[in-house]
Formats: sequence, C-alpha cells, structure tokens
Amino acid sequence: MAEATPLLKDELDIVIPTIRNLDFLEMWRPYFQPYHMIIVQDGDPSKVIKVPEGFDYELYNRNDINKILGPKASCISFKDSACRCFGYMVSKKKYIFTIDDDCFVAKDPSGKEINALSQHIKNILSPSSPYFFNTLYDPFREGADYVRGYPFSLREGVPTAVSHGLWLNIPDYDAPTQLVKPLEKNTRYVDAVMTIPKGTLFPMCGMNLTFDRDLIGPAMYFGLMGDGQPIGRYDDMWAGWCVKVICDHLGLGVKTGLPYIWHSKASNPFVNLKKEYKGIFWQEEIIPFFQAATLSKEAITVQQCYIELSKQVKEKLSKLDPYFDKLADAMVTWIEAWDELNPPKKTKLPNGTAK
Amino acid sequence: MAEATPLLKDELDIVIPTIRNLDFLEMWRPYFQPYHMIIVQDGDPSKVIKVPEGFDYELYNRNDINKILGPKASCISFKDSACRCFGYMVSKKKYIFTIDDDCFVAKDPSGKEINALSQHIKNILSPSSPYFFNTLYDPFREGADYVRGYPFSLREGVPTAVSHGLWLNIPDYDAPTQLVKPLEKNTRYVDAVMTIPKGTLFPMCGMNLTFDRDLIGPAMYFGLMGDGQPIGRYDDMWAGWCVKVICDHLGLGVKTGLPYIWHSKASNPFVNLKKEYKGIFWQEEIIPFFQAATLSKEAITVQQCYIELSKQVKEKLSKLDPYFDKLADAMVTWIEAWDELNPPKKTKLPNGTAK
Repeated sequence: MAEATPLLKDELDIVIPTIRNLDFLEMWRPYFQPYHMIIVQDGDPSKVIKVPEGFDYELYNRNDINKILGPKASCISFKDSACRCFGYMVSKKKYIFTIDDDCFVAKDPSGKEINALSQHIKNILSPSSPYFFNTLYDPFREGADYVRGYPFSLREGVPTAVSHGLWLNIPDYDAPTQLVKPLEKNTRYVDAVMTIPKGTLFPMCGMNLTFDRDLIGPAMYFGLMGDGQPIGRYDDMWAGWCVKVICDHLGLGVKTGLPYIWHSKASNPFVNLKKEYKGIFWQEEIIPFFQAATLSKEAITVQQCYIELSKQVKEKLSKLDPYFDKLADAMVTWIEAWDELNPPKKTKLPNGTAK
Repeated sequence: MAEATPLLKDELDIVIPTIRNLDFLEMWRPYFQPYHMIIVQDGDPSKVIKVPEGFDYELYNRNDINKILGPKASCISFKDSACRCFGYMVSKKKYIFTIDDDCFVAKDPSGKEINALSQHIKNILSPSSPYFFNTLYDPFREGADYVRGYPFSLREGVPTAVSHGLWLNIPDYDAPTQLVKPLEKNTRYVDAVMTIPKGTLFPMCGMNLTFDRDLIGPAMYFGLMGDGQPIGRYDDMWAGWCVKVICDHLGLGVKTGLPYIWHSKASNPFVNLKKEYKGIFWQEEIIPFFQAATLSKEAITVQQCYIELSKQVKEKLSKLDPYFDKLADAMVTWIEAWDELNPPKKTKLPNGTAK
C-alpha cells in the first residue's frame, strides 16, 4: 500500500506553528524527515526553538515576518498559532501539511502506526464527489466504489483541494464541551474518508490538515487572532468557512476522515473559554452569513473569490463588531501579500508558448 | 449497551418482500421473534411461503392486495420487491424495519453478531444534524459530541425520520459496476453513523432500512417496478429521492451508516442490467430534477408534500418517458390508499380535548 502512494517529497511542505515539545519531532522523524518543514514561531522572537539534527527546515519568527512583509505583516496574527498561515504563503510547494506540536503518531486498530502524511496524500490525489452522497464513503478507496443509483455523469468527481484529518484521544471540543465532559476521549477509529457535500459547511480544524496551495492556498488565511484581537481559536474555523464556500463555487472538493493523529493533551478550558467567548455568539451569525454567501460568475480565481468574500464580510458582518471591519481589511492585505510572494507563474501551453 | 436501547416491541413492524430462503428467518430468529412481521409476497399468489414456528406474522399476496385496495391496488408493483411498500401501508406501528431475504446477520470486527434492529432503533431515537457537518460523525453516539465550531443553536438537532443501514460482503452496486468488478466485496466496517446534510441527495437502498411511519411513511412509496413496467431496481432509489426532498422541506433527518447486515449473494448482473438499463439514462435527468425541486410553504404534511411532488413529476419528467406520467398518477393513488388505510388519528391535546 505505502509503496503505491507517491511521497511527493519535492512537492509538499510541512508547516508547524512553533514547536514547544521536542518529543513531537522525534516521534514524527521517520515520517517528516523526507520533507521540508516551515516552522512559524508564534511568540517572543528572542526565544530559540531547537530543532534536532537531521531535519530540513526553515524557521520564521515575528522579526522575519515583519521584514518580509513590511506593513502587510499586520495581517499575520501574533502570539497565536494562526500565524502558521504565513508558512502557507512563503512555501513554494504545491501541497501543505500542517500539524500542531501536541499531535503525535496514532495507531490503527491493529496497533500499526498511522502514516498520516501518506493518507493525506492518497486523499488529495484522488477526486472528491461533492454533488451526490455515496453511502460507501470515498468511492476512490481500495475495495470501494460508487453504489447503485449514483449518477454516472458525476463519477469522474472533482479535484480535491483539502484533506481534513481527525484526532484520537483528546477530541477537538470547544471550551463549554470541555468543561462539561472533562474526561471524554475519542476512542472510535472510523475507517472512512468522505467528501463534504456541496453547500454544506463544516468546522475545519487546523490540527491535522492538508491542502493544495495551487488550488485553494490564497483562501487558507487564518485571520486575526490572539494578541490584540478580541478572539482566539477561530483561526481554522474562519479559514474553513471561506475555503468551503470558495471550493463549492469553483467546483473543488473537501474530504474529511482519515488519517487520525493522536492528540496528546487538552488545552485549558478556562483559557479557551476566554478566547472563544465572543466567537460562540458570533458564529451564530457568521455561519448563516457563509451559508448564504454567493460569489459572482466573474470570480474565477481563488483570489477573486476571496476579495469578493472580504467585501461581503465588511458589508454584512461589521455590524456584529468593528473587529470584522478590520478582518475584512486584513483579508485584502493577505491576498496582496500572497500575490507579492507568489507572482503568477508562466504556465506553458500545450503548443509550447507561455500564457 | 443493548439494555439501554428500548426494544420498541409494540411500536415496530418488520416488513419483508417474500421469503425464498428459510435460513434467513432462522438466522434472524433471536432478533426478529420479539416483533411482528409483515411479509408481502411479490410473485405468484398460489405459491405458499412457509414461515417456521414461533414467528408472529401476517402475509399478503397479490390477491390480498387486490382485495384490500380494490382498483387502487394498481399503485403496488407486481413480481418485484417494490411491493414491500404495501406492508408499510397496512402496518399500524410507528416504526418500520425492512430487510431483504438475502441479508443475514453480520459480525462486527470483534466477531460479535450485530443486532441490526437495535442499532437502527438507536439511530432513529436520537436526533439528526442536517444543517452543519459534524466531523466526528453522529454527535449523539456514546463517546462523541459536537466538535469545536459547531453552532450551539443547532445542537438540539431535528427528529430522525430514516435510518439507512449498510452491507458487508456484497456491496449494493449497479449492473455495470457488478460486471466490471465481479469479485469486489465490501470488507470495510466503518464504525460511523452520520446525518446526510440538508440539500444533499443520496442513493437509498431498501435492503436494510428503518423509518418512522408517523414522520415520513406516506413518502416511502417504492413506485411502479417489475411486471408490466419498463424499469426495475429503482424502487428504493425513487423513494429515497422523494423522502430526502420532503425531509429537507419538513426539517427531518436522514441518517446513514451502521448497522451492517451481511449481504449474502450478488443478484445476476445481466438480469439487473435489463432492469436498470433505462434508469441509468433517466437518473441523469431525474436527480437534477429532485435537486432543484422545491415545495411550497403550504405543504406541511408528508401527504401534501408528496402530492406536490407528483405534480412536478408529471410536469417535468413526463417528457422523458410516458412512464413518468403513469408514475405520477400512481403517486396520487398511493396517497389516497394510504389515507384510506390510515385515517387521521384523533390526537389528544395537553388540555385533554381532541383535535
């Protein structure tokens, strides 16, 4: 099985927001060592992150971000793992895998270590099926297919832009659920990958996530969180809402399910409640906003879609809180910075000329 | 676990379309014996189905159907397992579990026999969550919940109308897939139950299915199939499309996933191709029709919704084939017959008066 999956060594970067726990890298060594890592340090730039020998990496702290982006650095969160999206922007690879430093290698029910990256690559290299539900889950997995009644015209599927992985042990709960169920662990290994249907939003968690930068990169903005902002822990959620609306518009797929990682420790629910507090109210209006959002036919690139979304955020969410006015501006700054660091590639046309 | 699930002995009927294989009943004996069974014989009424001792059942053949429904019997398929929907109509219970006679008791990965009925009852007694995707699957299962980012206003869920179970061993493939992959078996036990999101259609298989008659019964019409009809093997698909559109309109949930049954033998792909042939073309137009179908605000009962759908079928699908004109009429006949056999109950209001 593993041999059949391309490793994409030269096409994938691993993006990690700070590494506080060096066991983390040692545990992932056999899986991560073939890849290039981009570490984005979220806090005090004078603290030094020691990366063990043998890893290929680049590290950015706040000073680097400020130097590279200048005034546009304002769109990158400080003292919050949301800063990881800077890594998405400076990468030159087609695929990004991002993971938190409290996520370890999980085991499948047979006791075998799960190569999370290999599963993400499988997911992202096979098509998605967002227009009709397949009851046997991902029809592109070995031993599976589309079931009776699935329209043949839809079986080619669409390109997969995102592979959203899950977590064994500590589930990704909000602060109220953490407080109510302090002991709950996720012990259920669900052996499935599935496409999230078109028109359905989902809570995208940034702990264990892979995406195709070329297809959706500019929409993977993790917003303004942490230091100086009224909210935290909604960075990945924000990205997930924007990404899903844009994927639906552009005909791209989002998969969720395998692979699992082992989420080792629950973050402090009291600290989390403080960060999430406003988000718990706001999401009641933000989610209907994204559910109703439509993009124009003229929006054919991710950047164009994202700028349209930013205008709608300004227009419709600013009444919730002035924060959204600032966020809408930051969305525009993010796209400007993205385009600065990622100038359009000259792609060769089949006849040999460049377009 | 089993003790915690109500058995619903007096509230559930098992509906089976003919029993050709008596091993079937012996294998299910410990699970089915507590319930009442309704057997609807699909073929020659002179053939006698022998039901072993100890089962509580009623059996209907074509003569019975003709006697009970008179001219309205025309809406019930002949020589096709689609006739099973007559059993839904004559039942007086709140819940129906329907299963095919080539479906046996499956085992979970630990080797334990799966009590399919018990799992269906769990599914149907707990709410569904159709308005936002929960990445840890059914939040109402033990050890699971809604994840971070799931809006709190949606966590109450909606009543579950349908529980769609799956199949180990022989997957439910169409004839072309059967022909291309004659040896493929479904060996993957996916330990999940999930809500099919609002606005997403799915291929509903009638092999292993539970539903709430009070909530959705009148939409569970399996159409005109088999003898004298140009099509077969689309009975459950037709019901599934109608049911999902109506559930979405009425705010009801449809779950899929567990429980598995063991599907013992593949039906003949050549025979199936003959039955499915037209459906393979037609579904390319029928599915977009159902995806676009909307029901009026005035349609507040399943019957009203179904009659509205029948009008849209006549108006928009008859151009595909005169069959749909006949089917639209049969949909109306079905509702008339349903209402005749199921006169509106007088429900007691909280103040003791009847409405």
